Amino acid sequence: MQGYSEKEFFDKYSVRTDLALEAHQVVVEREGPPELPGVKVETVEKGQAVINRVTVENEMGARMIGKAPGYYSTIESRELRTHNREVHEELARYLAEELEWFIQQKKLGDEDPILVVGLGNWNATPDALGPRVVQNLMVTRHLLEMSPPELRHGLRPIAAISPGVLGLTGIETGEIIMGVTERIGAKAVICIDALASRSVERLCSTIQISDTGINPGAGVGNKRLAINEETLGIPVISIGVPTVVHAATIVSDAMDLLAGQKPESDVQERVPQRTTFQVDPRTIMGQQPAHQPQQPSMPEQPSLSGPQKRQLIQQVLEPYMGSMIVTPKEIDVLIDEVADIVAGALNIAFHEGVNYDQVFQYLT
Amino acid sequence: MQGYSEKEFFDKYSVRTDLALEAHQVVVEREGPPELPGVKVETVEKGQAVINRVTVENEMGARMIGKAPGYYSTIESRELRTHNREVHEELARYLAEELEWFIQQKKLGDEDPILVVGLGNWNATPDALGPRVVQNLMVTRHLLEMSPPELRHGLRPIAAISPGVLGLTGIETGEIIMGVTERIGAKAVICIDALASRSVERLCSTIQISDTGINPGAGVGNKRLAINEETLGIPVISIGVPTVVHAATIVSDAMDLLAGQKPESDVQERVPQRTTFQVDPRTIMGQQPAHQPQQPSMPEQPSLSGPQKRQLIQQVLEPYMGSMIVTPKEIDVLIDEVADIVAGALNIAFHEGVNYDQVFQYLT
Amino acid sequence: MQGYSEKEFFDKYSVRTDLALEAHQVVVEREGPPELPGVKVETVEKGQAVINRVTVENEMGARMIGKAPGYYSTIESRELRTHNREVHEELARYLAEELEWFIQQKKLGDEDPILVVGLGNWNATPDALGPRVVQNLMVTRHLLEMSPPELRHGLRPIAAISPGVLGLTGIETGEIIMGVTERIGAKAVICIDALASRSVERLCSTIQISDTGINPGAGVGNKRLAINEETLGIPVISIGVPTVVHAATIVSDAMDLLAGQKPESDVQERVPQRTTFQVDPRTIMGQQPAHQPQQPSMPEQPSLSGPQKRQLIQQVLEPYMGSMIVTPKEIDVLIDEVADIVAGALNIAFHEGVNYDQVFQYLT
Amino acid sequence: MQGYSEKEFFDKYSVRTDLALEAHQVVVEREGPPELPGVKVETVEKGQAVINRVTVENEMGARMIGKAPGYYSTIESRELRTHNREVHEELARYLAEELEWFIQQKKLGDEDPILVVGLGNWNATPDALGPRVVQNLMVTRHLLEMSPPELRHGLRPIAAISPGVLGLTGIETGEIIMGVTERIGAKAVICIDALASRSVERLCSTIQISDTGINPGAGVGNKRLAINEETLGIPVISIGVPTVVHAATIVSDAMDLLAGQKPESDVQERVPQRTTFQVDPRTIMGQQPAHQPQQPSMPEQPSLSGPQKRQLIQQVLEPYMGSMIVTPKEIDVLIDEVADIVAGALNIAFHEGVNYDQVFQYLT
Repeated sequence: MQGYSEKEFFDKYSVRTDLALEAHQVVVEREGPPELPGVKVETVEKGQAVINRVTVENEMGARMIGKAPGYYSTIESRELRTHNREVHEELARYLAEELEWFIQQKKLGDEDPILVVGLGNWNATPDALGPRVVQNLMVTRHLLEMSPPELRHGLRPIAAISPGVLGLTGIETGEIIMGVTERIGAKAVICIDALASRSVERLCSTIQISDTGINPGAGVGNKRLAINEETLGIPVISIGVPTVVHAATIVSDAMDLLAGQKPESDVQERVPQRTTFQVDPRTIMGQQPAHQPQQPSMPEQPSLSGPQKRQLIQQVLEPYMGSMIVTPKEIDVLIDEVADIVAGALNIAFHEGVNYDQVFQYLT
Repeated sequence: MQGYSEKEFFDKYSVRTDLALEAHQVVVEREGPPELPGVKVETVEKGQAVINRVTVENEMGARMIGKAPGYYSTIESRELRTHNREVHEELARYLAEELEWFIQQKKLGDEDPILVVGLGNWNATPDALGPRVVQNLMVTRHLLEMSPPELRHGLRPIAAISPGVLGLTGIETGEIIMGVTERIGAKAVICIDALASRSVERLCSTIQISDTGINPGAGVGNKRLAINEETLGIPVISIGVPTVVHAATIVSDAMDLLAGQKPESDVQERVPQRTTFQVDPRTIMGQQPAHQPQQPSMPEQPSLSGPQKRQLIQQVLEPYMGSMIVTPKEIDVLIDEVADIVAGALNIAFHEGVNYDQVFQYLT
Repeated sequence: MQGYSEKEFFDKYSVRTDLALEAHQVVVEREGPPELPGVKVETVEKGQAVINRVTVENEMGARMIGKAPGYYSTIESRELRTHNREVHEELARYLAEELEWFIQQKKLGDEDPILVVGLGNWNATPDALGPRVVQNLMVTRHLLEMSPPELRHGLRPIAAISPGVLGLTGIETGEIIMGVTERIGAKAVICIDALASRSVERLCSTIQISDTGINPGAGVGNKRLAINEETLGIPVISIGVPTVVHAATIVSDAMDLLAGQKPESDVQERVPQRTTFQVDPRTIMGQQPAHQPQQPSMPEQPSLSGPQKRQLIQQVLEPYMGSMIVTPKEIDVLIDEVADIVAGALNIAFHEGVNYDQVFQYLT
Repeated sequence: MQGYSEKEFFDKYSVRTDLALEAHQVVVEREGPPELPGVKVETVEKGQAVINRVTVENEMGARMIGKAPGYYSTIESRELRTHNREVHEELARYLAEELEWFIQQKKLGDEDPILVVGLGNWNATPDALGPRVVQNLMVTRHLLEMSPPELRHGLRPIAAISPGVLGLTGIETGEIIMGVTERIGAKAVICIDALASRSVERLCSTIQISDTGINPGAGVGNKRLAINEETLGIPVISIGVPTVVHAATIVSDAMDLLAGQKPESDVQERVPQRTTFQVDPRTIMGQQPAHQPQQPSMPEQPSLSGPQKRQLIQQVLEPYMGSMIVTPKEIDVLIDEVADIVAGALNIAFHEGVNYDQVFQYLT
């Protein structure tokens, strides 16, 4: 049905990623040249962060990088993995600014109610980002409903749910969201989800915001029903943070290296990106990490055809290729840090500068 | 609107209880005689349990005991607080039988989907019963949806959610349930909720099933919107277990005792019921608890008028009388035990004797 | 053995409290005059807080108020129950200052290792304060152990455990602490514990620091073995926050009111203190709460002797009087707020102004 | 110091495993013949399980398979991953029998106290096995301590702790255990830990019991201090269940396949073992899983030297090779199932057939 295909993208590059920025990089790296038809990329540096804005302009672009047409902003910062509160507040502010841009883009009125949805399974650490963000969110819809209409002027009602996952509820997450948005008359949905990236370097160090929703098979948990503007009838803004790499991607990387398909120089640049992940206590304390160890040189080997490679990956991980994930041992600490930042950004975007004094007088 | 009033009941007797059986007992105790117009009570003893079935036949009965017209079954057993698995299986079976009676009463078809709702706040131990039951429930709706229609013959799709509480979501729990039931076409809702009883003796030792739903102000958490057949348009069966006593009830009891409004003999019978609660390690291990200590005699005192008493209770607990709860320190252990029994009973009632073999072949 | 007795205090006043300040108030209120032999009280106002410092100078004072000889500082602020981060940072700073005073008082060297102990049961919300504080604490002992001695100059190793409760471990908490302090050579222990106060007003709005340790029966959970300097052989500083009121105290208050033992004017002052507790969403949002409702007048009644009163309390709550606790429904939210403040204060007191740069270079 | 080396084993075979059975298989597979000097293997089939008993007789054997000298029993059953309670009870009984053999082997007296230790981080799902087992354990030490000596005849005091991990406590887990065992006079320690296996097939489908303790670097979390009879001075029995595969192992497997170092026939046998993992809802419901898909044929490739392979693995995962783990998305569900079985087995081994009646009379 849809003109783009994440599956096709995986079949071609043996890489799974929920990040449009990474998908773009993979294509450019393997196919060159840097400009793909139907895909625009803009990069801005701000303090401790690099912000990339990828626009998939049309079906052509969507096919190229396996991501639906729409806007994708990515905030990257190694500081996301540190425990430095000042930098975190700075990053939360950048995220709030990007989010405000998406909200304006969707022409939402100031008083239009928004439903925030924490996707994922709260019992499984790498999938628990969404529920943890929702737990730290300031919800106001019930407060505003209790106050007289003249006082609600300019105030946005915020509601929030963590619907759980299909295996626990027996209900597609998308169905629960549809039921609740219809019932409460939400004018937009903001989904928070744990994502898969292609590189360990990006785990908990990148935040993606997009307006294309959550598509079947994306995210860490399984969703079969799309959660997007088409299915819900209202705008869907999704905020995602990679917390896992699919095992298939790691295996594919290993094979690429072994098969020596990349010239030495390229690998030198690519490898650090994939390999520098760790919870370094220095970074938790807000310090600079030490130097990177040198990469050893790599032996040259004959190349491998696409179908051969896919077959080998299947052989290592089949028959349940999609189920195995790679994640750092310390993922619980990392998710706590980034969940605080995302919740902080939402609270800023929704409530900053708002005076609730009069509203609260009508609370029982 | 409604012909009965829990508030009136509290105003009259200074007792809050979500159990119809207790409400009936309070009225009989204070007003006599044992037969109230519009209220029928039937008692059955089964193994380790006593089952009481209260029928509130009409508005007259509803006014008398402050509970909506309908059926209320209560399974009482001290063994609910023990850790004896064999007895627990027996109790789960009794609960399953009562539940099956309610399901038949509502004329549900074998294949009619049911939504189980775990009410309450999973972060607050005494309110977490519902979410804990849902966590141990076997859900099947998604499995049946994936299998071909000819295989679903006679199988009931079960879905389950834990919607959270108003303060965390900004949405009335009833609204979320309405949205989800409409969306998935549920033909009945079964709500699990932590209740308030009037006596500490009943904490985690009584399970009530009723067909009158959850009414505003009932349960441990605050609900302002009724969750019943009238609001949802489909039958609502609720299963509740008392986990707290309202502080107002304890204070009222203290004043009654002090004011000496009851003749000695009555108190001798009433007091043990209210006072024998404890997590006795013997009972956790499945042993018989030791003998009850003797009650000291009580001094006679002049009586207190209804309004005077209410005023005094308010003085001790106001202005937020409803917010303070009394619960045993060991409530976490007790709730785990009873949540296992309730989840077990639901699994028996829904799935026992069902063969899912063919259905599962259609799973991906 | 010990010259003071919390039990005697309860027998005399029918009030259980872990706060020295409250114990002092009870005695002064009932016995007058304000100056008790062997007990000194000093009050300081700082920004949003009132700091009381009670010194129990000797056995005479200890007997008077049922608290062991030593120092007790209490930081009181309604803002502890709000969600105002700026005020919370201010309060954490005051707490850190008090804590630093105790540390100096105990003549601890800058490099002396400290063990922080989160007492209580993490499964039972009202008892979970200690474990939640420990979870947010920055521990450094392992980092310092890995770095060369010359770099540890002036840095204090901090370790932390949450030992659980007797019912879960089969081991007295005090035994676990003794074993660990001996093993790691800790020079002081800081215990964090949930306390019982006499008034609901103080729940999560008061923090007590003392150097008298935790005594049998104190705190929310049961401890039979004292955790203090005498048993451990090293200084014990304890930080406690009331999260529950014993049901016996509430019942006693009700009886006092009914028996009319207090002149009207006193009650007018005392009652608000006991009764204004609630999670008001205004305060969660950092706003001022609304005005207090007026107290109704109270009927006069004949007085009640001490033994008569104790007998009545037992009748309402016996045989397991000590097991029933009174707590607000929203205790989970309140504990999260105050745990953040206590953890923040410890991190300030331990680590502020410390440069770990060189130490971290020795991490693997 | 120690004659064997897990590091050497990894260096030679590029495989990390905490299971002696797997280590033996790797060596036999790669080196042949099936009989290694100093290592004995015995296999028994019992109902739904296969029980393997590996004896590492001496330093020679220890060097061969990288595991310390001692006894290793392994209970394997696919049914460990199902939700079939009857089979689980059967498996718990087999585990209890093996455990009883180890206890007898260590010549423990019937009344000798045992400390059960739940190793690992309760916040990180794949590492939470130990704490979850401890949560379901029946502890009795405190009950026995309160009863008179003549009643304790033949009863074994059981205590249990979940000490946390180094990063959270600042204390080596081994130090905490030493401190507590000394304090309480435990005569043996039983450690429960999440392990790493070499194959996804074994995740949550194998339980290993051994008497060699936990060695540095073993398990999912990092331990630097050995927890064994040598360091504690009392017997240490460890029970472990694999919940992760190290990413390095997966990458190595991929490279082996690509390099074609194995003849086709061997791979046919080896691959299914590594690849059939999944949470199949049929197995959760206690049904038989469907047939395995056929393995595609594998292309032949030139072989790779040991050092070359290690270099490539490092390139994919360095510099933090040890930190990345591979685990199924549904690990939370799987761990819950197997934790119940392990706790059940401990309760059987410790308490079955014991009559606590008289003991409990001496409680409070």
